[in-house]
Amino acid sequence: MNNKYELIYEGKAKKVFTHDDANKVKIEFKDDATAFNALKKEKFEGKGKLNCLISARIFEILIKKNIPTHFIELENENTMIAKKMQVIPLEIVLRNTAYGSLCKQTTIKPGTLLSKPLIDIYLKNDELNDPLITKDRIELMNILSSHDLELIINLTLKINVILKSFFKNIQLQLVDFKLEFGYDSYNNIILGDEISPDNCRLWDLNQDLGGLIEAYSEIHRRMNDFLLPN
Amino acid sequence: MNNKYELIYEGKAKKVFTHDDANKVKIEFKDDATAFNALKKEKFEGKGKLNCLISARIFEILIKKNIPTHFIELENENTMIAKKMQVIPLEIVLRNTAYGSLCKQTTIKPGTLLSKPLIDIYLKNDELNDPLITKDRIELMNILSSHDLELIINLTLKINVILKSFFKNIQLQLVDFKLEFGYDSYNNIILGDEISPDNCRLWDLNQDLGGLIEAYSEIHRRMNDFLLPN
Repeated sequence: MNNKYELIYEGKAKKVFTHDDANKVKIEFKDDATAFNALKKEKFEGKGKLNCLISARIFEILIKKNIPTHFIELENENTMIAKKMQVIPLEIVLRNTAYGSLCKQTTIKPGTLLSKPLIDIYLKNDELNDPLITKDRIELMNILSSHDLELIINLTLKINVILKSFFKNIQLQLVDFKLEFGYDSYNNIILGDEISPDNCRLWDLNQDLGGLIEAYSEIHRRMNDFLLPN
Repeated sequence: MNNKYELIYEGKAKKVFTHDDANKVKIEFKDDATAFNALKKEKFEGKGKLNCLISARIFEILIKKNIPTHFIELENENTMIAKKMQVIPLEIVLRNTAYGSLCKQTTIKPGTLLSKPLIDIYLKNDELNDPLITKDRIELMNILSSHDLELIINLTLKINVILKSFFKNIQLQLVDFKLEFGYDSYNNIILGDEISPDNCRLWDLNQDLGGLIEAYSEIHRRMNDFLLPN
């Protein structure tokens, strides 16, 4: 990234830089992998690029379906231009199938198809290890109004319908995914972060997708094949 | 306990036995102490008796205020006769002041007086270490209907008003407490378990209450002084 742009924030998987337009940011995708807040960190050559391209494609699909997102355009293969947003410090996880922490905190068995999508909300706080949070605790902490929380939950449910059907077309089962929202310069709630295999748990309906880069590449290849011509 | 009665259940702090009347049980209070699911277990001579007597007094107060409870009468100093009930596997915690796990799972500082009472619900499951559970997870697990859940929450809020005011009379601040509910033989929701210093966090408004037995005895003494003549 050119020195002209200032680093605003560096997360586990992305760096966010200023843009010439104060209402925009440049988001650079990194090759580090830390799945679901795991403490282990590894570098995977090419992961940043794959996640950036996959995310861009998915944001385009969501925008066409009238979901407000921060995505504007790709600058290059691992950098996107996005609307600057004030991040809401919550991680919204939607689960279609039980897996991971849900099965450690309830008696629901891994792999159980849920009777309806479950939304689990986590406080975005590295020090506290992103704990599960209830609506009552969110309200008490004044993180956002209950109106805006309901809006985010409804957007997440809509996004699930779109993504589930999209991934099914390419023989992938959307087990669960994690979203982040924020407010744009006009105080509208928009979807932020990324939508990639880093925060979507995807199971192949027929076969094992292999290691991380093989799986991410395969997902990207299937998306491209399905979406062509673009 | 006479051999005539069969042990139905043994928990951390109580043994539950059958009664001649199939709709009733005998609850014997033990001297073991394990505060808030701590793994440490110790014996405190006289704790069972104190908790039984304190609980009986509090159940009587709640019953007078039309809260349905399992309490029928004391059989002796550490045994109460109660309605047999099918326990709902949830622990309902009401917090007036932030303390304990709430402060480890949010950014709320210990000792913060909450702007309104917070209800945190935990799945009663020793193996899973009684995890925090959301309303959506409760619904998904079919633990109870949302109607019954709302009923329990409203009862808990009412009980808080009664207990807070009662303890204030004897110079104690009710920080938080844990309740358990269940269904009686007629399928009515009733308050179960015990209401004692084992599951109520009480802070003296003026002084340190001392060690466990000293504190429990002091609470019992103040209650008796306040409630006399009985």
